[in-house]
Amino acid sequence: MPRLAFLGPQATFAQQALLSLPESRDAELLPYAGSTAALAAVRSGEADAACVPFENSVEGGVPAVLDSLVCDPPLVIVREVLLAVEFAVMVRPGTTAADVRTVASHPHGEAQTRHWLAANLPAAEVKMSSSTAEAAAQVARGEVDAAVAAPLAARTHGLTILAEDVADNAAAVTRFVLVCPPGPPPAPTSVDRTTLAATTENRPGALLSVLTELAVRDIDLTRIESRPIKGLRNEYWFHLDCTGHVAQPAMGEALAALHRRCLRVRYLGSYPRALEPANGISATADKVAGLGDARPRSLEPVNGNSPEPVNGNSADRFVAAARWLDGVRAGSQA
Amino acid sequence: MPRLAFLGPQATFAQQALLSLPESRDAELLPYAGSTAALAAVRSGEADAACVPFENSVEGGVPAVLDSLVCDPPLVIVREVLLAVEFAVMVRPGTTAADVRTVASHPHGEAQTRHWLAANLPAAEVKMSSSTAEAAAQVARGEVDAAVAAPLAARTHGLTILAEDVADNAAAVTRFVLVCPPGPPPAPTSVDRTTLAATTENRPGALLSVLTELAVRDIDLTRIESRPIKGLRNEYWFHLDCTGHVAQPAMGEALAALHRRCLRVRYLGSYPRALEPANGISATADKVAGLGDARPRSLEPVNGNSPEPVNGNSADRFVAAARWLDGVRAGSQA
Amino acid sequence: MPRLAFLGPQATFAQQALLSLPESRDAELLPYAGSTAALAAVRSGEADAACVPFENSVEGGVPAVLDSLVCDPPLVIVREVLLAVEFAVMVRPGTTAADVRTVASHPHGEAQTRHWLAANLPAAEVKMSSSTAEAAAQVARGEVDAAVAAPLAARTHGLTILAEDVADNAAAVTRFVLVCPPGPPPAPTSVDRTTLAATTENRPGALLSVLTELAVRDIDLTRIESRPIKGLRNEYWFHLDCTGHVAQPAMGEALAALHRRCLRVRYLGSYPRALEPANGISATADKVAGLGDARPRSLEPVNGNSPEPVNGNSADRFVAAARWLDGVRAGSQA
Amino acid sequence: MPRLAFLGPQATFAQQALLSLPESRDAELLPYAGSTAALAAVRSGEADAACVPFENSVEGGVPAVLDSLVCDPPLVIVREVLLAVEFAVMVRPGTTAADVRTVASHPHGEAQTRHWLAANLPAAEVKMSSSTAEAAAQVARGEVDAAVAAPLAARTHGLTILAEDVADNAAAVTRFVLVCPPGPPPAPTSVDRTTLAATTENRPGALLSVLTELAVRDIDLTRIESRPIKGLRNEYWFHLDCTGHVAQPAMGEALAALHRRCLRVRYLGSYPRALEPANGISATADKVAGLGDARPRSLEPVNGNSPEPVNGNSADRFVAAARWLDGVRAGSQA
Repeated sequence: MPRLAFLGPQATFAQQALLSLPESRDAELLPYAGSTAALAAVRSGEADAACVPFENSVEGGVPAVLDSLVCDPPLVIVREVLLAVEFAVMVRPGTTAADVRTVASHPHGEAQTRHWLAANLPAAEVKMSSSTAEAAAQVARGEVDAAVAAPLAARTHGLTILAEDVADNAAAVTRFVLVCPPGPPPAPTSVDRTTLAATTENRPGALLSVLTELAVRDIDLTRIESRPIKGLRNEYWFHLDCTGHVAQPAMGEALAALHRRCLRVRYLGSYPRALEPANGISATADKVAGLGDARPRSLEPVNGNSPEPVNGNSADRFVAAARWLDGVRAGSQA
Repeated sequence: MPRLAFLGPQATFAQQALLSLPESRDAELLPYAGSTAALAAVRSGEADAACVPFENSVEGGVPAVLDSLVCDPPLVIVREVLLAVEFAVMVRPGTTAADVRTVASHPHGEAQTRHWLAANLPAAEVKMSSSTAEAAAQVARGEVDAAVAAPLAARTHGLTILAEDVADNAAAVTRFVLVCPPGPPPAPTSVDRTTLAATTENRPGALLSVLTELAVRDIDLTRIESRPIKGLRNEYWFHLDCTGHVAQPAMGEALAALHRRCLRVRYLGSYPRALEPANGISATADKVAGLGDARPRSLEPVNGNSPEPVNGNSADRFVAAARWLDGVRAGSQA
Repeated sequence: MPRLAFLGPQATFAQQALLSLPESRDAELLPYAGSTAALAAVRSGEADAACVPFENSVEGGVPAVLDSLVCDPPLVIVREVLLAVEFAVMVRPGTTAADVRTVASHPHGEAQTRHWLAANLPAAEVKMSSSTAEAAAQVARGEVDAAVAAPLAARTHGLTILAEDVADNAAAVTRFVLVCPPGPPPAPTSVDRTTLAATTENRPGALLSVLTELAVRDIDLTRIESRPIKGLRNEYWFHLDCTGHVAQPAMGEALAALHRRCLRVRYLGSYPRALEPANGISATADKVAGLGDARPRSLEPVNGNSPEPVNGNSADRFVAAARWLDGVRAGSQA
Repeated sequence: MPRLAFLGPQATFAQQALLSLPESRDAELLPYAGSTAALAAVRSGEADAACVPFENSVEGGVPAVLDSLVCDPPLVIVREVLLAVEFAVMVRPGTTAADVRTVASHPHGEAQTRHWLAANLPAAEVKMSSSTAEAAAQVARGEVDAAVAAPLAARTHGLTILAEDVADNAAAVTRFVLVCPPGPPPAPTSVDRTTLAATTENRPGALLSVLTELAVRDIDLTRIESRPIKGLRNEYWFHLDCTGHVAQPAMGEALAALHRRCLRVRYLGSYPRALEPANGISATADKVAGLGDARPRSLEPVNGNSPEPVNGNSADRFVAAARWLDGVRAGSQA
């Protein structure tokens, strides 16, 4: 029976995202106390895959996940799920709005429902929890009267939903990814995404030259984000989501070109692109719990770090890049 | 006496950043309950400027600030400050480590000191607060025994520092910015930064063409981040930090070119680049408090939103762009 | 009365091109024994303008004209004319095909009518002349029996046309230009052309960067040709024809950018684009007569020739380029 | 015994270029009356290779050769030779300068020695010949008194050299190429050249995208020339000389990319680059004799000619391009 890690505790949005995938049937679902911990479980073999948040339409990329994917031993994305983030107010059975003196939530949940709470539960004191799922657990244990959390959390903890859809603004959408050890990618569909990250020499035009490698091959970018490289002042990982699949020649050639040109490049997977949110039942993003779990990182670039400009078109670079690409396609990258 | 808003409450890192600036002398410092609220105070005239977090070396750009700067009425950055984020454990005078049964912090503070707490205060229960400064206030009020917060918070609340530098990893650095209503930029120095944001047509190569406008004029990018445009699926603001100053011809021509080419462009200021952290006394980042305060946003692009490709080189675009650039340089952009 | 030079002798295609222009009415037409000589007459003030061949659809750019325009003191193109090159066989009145023992032509005329001559005048000996117009003059003087020349030459020399349209292949088209001393360009029309030439540093990507300056401003190239710089091994002038007019902001900014970026740049005029051949009566191209009249050339680049890469975006380059562009637009370039 | 064609007649610069090559030893040398005829002899099997002029430092590319290489059945360049063009005045033995009443030369030779002739043989009438070698033959036959021709022509025709180095300007250099039927290219050396030609869709930026394919792979251009496509108004062949060899991965990938992106592409050979003129004895360029020998041309583009933009990165294009590249490398291109 496959063991699938997720960003816990029970009843998080990550769990809900995982439950929407066929991979979760007949699998053992294992909650972890942070995205980094869930990814570490895959690396150690404790779990076969992990479902973690990757990007949120309000808050952007999830730093702990982005950083772990480029700094720790390689993992690849094999699936993505979009979930609209829905918040509900939940209480123990029998509690009414008039009874609510304390409301718990994660700071993100509180921030996104502040106006609703001020208008509808003006007398209640707001308490912070480490996750919205934990807030629901606190209600179940009688520590607070109400929680702002994902509807799934009510079901999990035997609570009653007092009000649904209490977010002050239209729902944010969170993108979750299912991450595995390196292996062959899912077969191409007509609508795929390839995720990768790269670092370049710290000189003008370096990023432009990376994007040109994609553009000359008609590969479109759907997301770009620079993330500081820990410990290296003024150097960045560029995280890129692209249209297409590593099995396609254009994407293969582009990856090989980046391998030649960049100081470091991480292929992070080719997988079917999710076009619509999978809800149904939603769960809390809880992404903050995973922040800051940084661990020692390998900073050794793929292409050495000499003071000379990289000659990304030397014949040995072509050989090395082709070998690397073969490995990427076979799922056996070092 | 100038009134300077900052991301509060008292004793945050934002306040500390503000105190490191000459502008804070003889000024009235006004704490606000979120970065968005601090920026709104500048827009409404309640404050003359605001000091808010912009980017963190671990967590990346601060979403609420980035979003407010592009979506709400224009403001410009006139200063930046780097601060290394230092955490201390603080208690009421007389409390010893053995006395500590409860420790409060913001979830970010907790996440970054988790291993230290497990090793050094293993018996203490950890409670969440809405900010590290609030955690220190809770200690002062006797609600908890200890707080993980900025050293400044100890001074503000009359607490004793039990342990310094308790972060599990080397300190993150946060970049704070001082933001004003549009006006003439600070005079160029030899090391300036220009911050801007733009949206493009949603087609392959659109970002590349933006970066090419910069690259042909030898302007270097120091940060790039795509942020989803709220309410528009698959459209992004590209946030860019560049080397150089709007008063320089190359930067001026590049901005004018982006004004012609992009659907929307926001000039967000030219200002001296901070090269080293300003600490001394540090303060909590508290960036989470500002999340989610989204307000109605203007999505009307500068250049209309017609189905035809933008002709960024038509003569009327040149006229409009030159007029806009004059306004930007004069500090009177609409 | 304006004096207009042309590539002579009388009855050349260049004269015919000139006659198709309104500028030729009430003007004195002066034949010169080569395109270079005609251009020199404009520089010395002997003539107010010169009509010379610029490009031929079979043979490409006319080297002597291209070289003179970039190497000798500045001149600018103010008009262009397209002419289809038609050849006729002409004799003295009374001569019949059976009487023709000798046929004269310029080697180009001979080459383009060789099959016709072999089929129709198989017994005639072919003699070479210095131009097709001179061949017609030789017929008039009784030195040969027939000439392959432009129909205009028959009229000029009182000859009878024995056969028209004797070219072995569909007619080539030659583009002639009317060249003046620097001065304000003709007013923009909706369909203009701008001609320029530039030299770059001898390094990879230099030409690409020139073309990028045009492309980012949506300026299209209609012709490109590299010509070796005399005396400089492996260095080239790039001759470019572009769509648009120097009075347009995009073209102005592009020219200014090239002025900053290139070692040398020559603006060679903005003028209405000819879309159709002007014939009617045609005249011989005779372009070869102008070849090889090279004269001492100034090789001093606009932007110095230092070993360091050119910083085309320095502020002083912007100032110098703007001043130059003002001069170009005012017609007073140095 | 190999049969090697050259641009004749006997004693041309092309013959001299051929004699400087080891391939000419033990070979039968066959003069042809034009470069196009020499190339046709290779296509028909009459000759195994042909030596023809390709580019002249004064006059640029040789149109008839460029056009034949892209329009007629494929041939490839396997060698190049540079020759400085030297002119001598030659007479029958016993003739003195004072005896010279008539001087013959090709119009190019006359143009390049005009000032010398005016100064040194002012009384002599100048006659035109179809080649400088033919002018020397006319001297030998007693038809004229002197010829301006290549020194080799004096030896060939038993003439005496009256004056050497009579060109008015420093010698032009002509580049000759040895052309064969498609076959494996010469082995790479450290300094090679690859010649190719391509046509693109007639839209802005098309040429830029071709050059970008080269630049992203660090391939340098040494020559570019646009040549009108006969019969297609406003469409051009771009002729390119590049550094590097088709056997190198970067050049291979670039050629494959051009094959995907362009309407038509012709690989014209990879061969060692000549760095210095091979003279010794020089010979006349006589390139004009080959002009105008145009023949019916295939205009069918490699990639169809649909109204839709070419998708140069589709998977089938990759397959087709890879197959084509294999053929190019194996010397069996269709």
